[in-house]
Amino acid sequence: MTGKNRSVAGTPATSRTAIPPGTRDVLPEEMRELRAIGGRMRAAFEDAGYGEVHTPALEYEEVLLRGDERAAGARYRSFDEQGAVLALRSDMTIPIARVVATRYAGVDPPLRFSYLAHAWRATDRGVGEPREFLQAGIELIGVPGAEGEAEVVALTVEALNAAGLKRHRVGVGDGQLYRSLLSSFGVSAEAHMPLLETLSRRDLVGLEAQVSQLGLDDAKRELLVRLPELRGGRDVLDRAEELPGGGAAGAALEGLRGLHDLLSQRAVADRVIYDLGMVRELGYYTGAVFEVYDPAVGFTLGGGGRYDELIGRFGRDLAACGLALDVQRVHLAQAAEEALGAEEPA
Amino acid sequence: MTGKNRSVAGTPATSRTAIPPGTRDVLPEEMRELRAIGGRMRAAFEDAGYGEVHTPALEYEEVLLRGDERAAGARYRSFDEQGAVLALRSDMTIPIARVVATRYAGVDPPLRFSYLAHAWRATDRGVGEPREFLQAGIELIGVPGAEGEAEVVALTVEALNAAGLKRHRVGVGDGQLYRSLLSSFGVSAEAHMPLLETLSRRDLVGLEAQVSQLGLDDAKRELLVRLPELRGGRDVLDRAEELPGGGAAGAALEGLRGLHDLLSQRAVADRVIYDLGMVRELGYYTGAVFEVYDPAVGFTLGGGGRYDELIGRFGRDLAACGLALDVQRVHLAQAAEEALGAEEPA
Repeated sequence: MTGKNRSVAGTPATSRTAIPPGTRDVLPEEMRELRAIGGRMRAAFEDAGYGEVHTPALEYEEVLLRGDERAAGARYRSFDEQGAVLALRSDMTIPIARVVATRYAGVDPPLRFSYLAHAWRATDRGVGEPREFLQAGIELIGVPGAEGEAEVVALTVEALNAAGLKRHRVGVGDGQLYRSLLSSFGVSAEAHMPLLETLSRRDLVGLEAQVSQLGLDDAKRELLVRLPELRGGRDVLDRAEELPGGGAAGAALEGLRGLHDLLSQRAVADRVIYDLGMVRELGYYTGAVFEVYDPAVGFTLGGGGRYDELIGRFGRDLAACGLALDVQRVHLAQAAEEALGAEEPA
Repeated sequence: MTGKNRSVAGTPATSRTAIPPGTRDVLPEEMRELRAIGGRMRAAFEDAGYGEVHTPALEYEEVLLRGDERAAGARYRSFDEQGAVLALRSDMTIPIARVVATRYAGVDPPLRFSYLAHAWRATDRGVGEPREFLQAGIELIGVPGAEGEAEVVALTVEALNAAGLKRHRVGVGDGQLYRSLLSSFGVSAEAHMPLLETLSRRDLVGLEAQVSQLGLDDAKRELLVRLPELRGGRDVLDRAEELPGGGAAGAALEGLRGLHDLLSQRAVADRVIYDLGMVRELGYYTGAVFEVYDPAVGFTLGGGGRYDELIGRFGRDLAACGLALDVQRVHLAQAAEEALGAEEPA
């Protein structure tokens, strides 16, 4: 029997059974693999002392916006019985910041939390964007600076090892570097956002055109155009300093060199790509930012960074740093690695 | 530092960090136990050939309402970018019925699916009702009658064994029995709903008062009042038939006797309580209904039943039967059993 035989009130069968774009039904064969990958990452986090937490999918929108007011339009909103606005969480970092400030208000840091949970985002940013995604992630609370960042990057590499990946890389940048250069060069705050948006799209040609219109001297213009092109091993940190005017980036580069030393001690430095043009779109990052790649696939597997001011918005000032991986994308990367491995025997 | 020190724009700290009533933050110690219990039930389902599926949390409301139009008001609704109404699923049975009719349209039954997923319901039905809950459940598609029901009940008992429970029981009733008696006694359809609502609240005193006003002869009135009081082992099926007018329930009782024989063969009959007053509130049940209890706690752990018309609403006529367990309640029952066990050494 086909759906057409049972059509009700003229509704076509497809719309009677359709699911929203950006969502999917996961069937048993794939589900087994997603469970296995998620479970292995969760175990890696747990073994490293990161206890799993779960928070409500629906929270008061007012509370979530306290964490990141720029995310306002991108949420699914509903109402409770009293008319208060509820929203679906768009990440787990903001809810965990709330949990730290409330349920752990009297507990001394450091605190280590993990999660394996769904989050939801509006798909107006582009066709094919997922509306719902399963994230595996960690939050390290109360360990400031490079020490915290090195722990988060190293555990990310380890969790992806556990998930069966072999070619994964973590991109590391400084989310404040470009902003602080613009400020120190006297570029007005209103002009920052279009530049940062172009940069976050990795549109280096467009960036050069925009930078040329800022009316800066040659050395400053050259630095703003060349710095985001630098991407690679530790040597890019030295090459950045050698750029004309590169001294202006000195403090950020010094911070990344310190992080590199700690990553070397943890034997994961060969997994890291320094990327001086990296800008993460979430508003709460205050320092180092991370993106996770696998050369077998053309999309990022996840990302994160340092967010030293977020937990304070819920009432407790604590430095923090975290990273989230998209479990479905990790699964696709693992399958792609296997396919490539079959093509290129070792 | 307390939250008050950082109060923003006069907002009290509690409302700045509150979560909606009926939701909760789950911290690592409890989360480990919930993961363990959910994982053991999932493994029991998988071992029995029930492959896990996952469906989107947000679906088109129109599609969900096709499964159960009575659930209309109880959902969290939002809008997509085109203005279509999206709703959070309130169970997994309706989405899986949709999946069966679409993704498995050409696959011969029987089909066996399981899930471990959150669902959401409005809390207007009472204070303390959860708004979000984690369900572990199974759906058996294409096995009609007592054979399907026995498989679902037996696997439920086994999954709860795996979760560590020892005292669990499954209540079994016939969701159509009371309705069909009312119809055969000539009670108008409009009068059914208030009676069924009183019965679903287990308010046998209120039920007797309502039945007395129907103007029925003594035998019929007696049957409608006495039948829902019958609850126990297989002997209640015989006692029901011996009630004045009990012959009217003969077909339903014969069906439950057949189910009892199959449950005996599966060695789970001692776990079953026949309950002739059981009415499940979900609108799609067409035959046997189930509720799961544990004497260590005062709430049901889950429920389900036979829904032979639901999948047809999505385009494929197939008999089906399923059951969902609330993972948090199973955890509470397990903890309560342990506490009782410590008090009453064997």
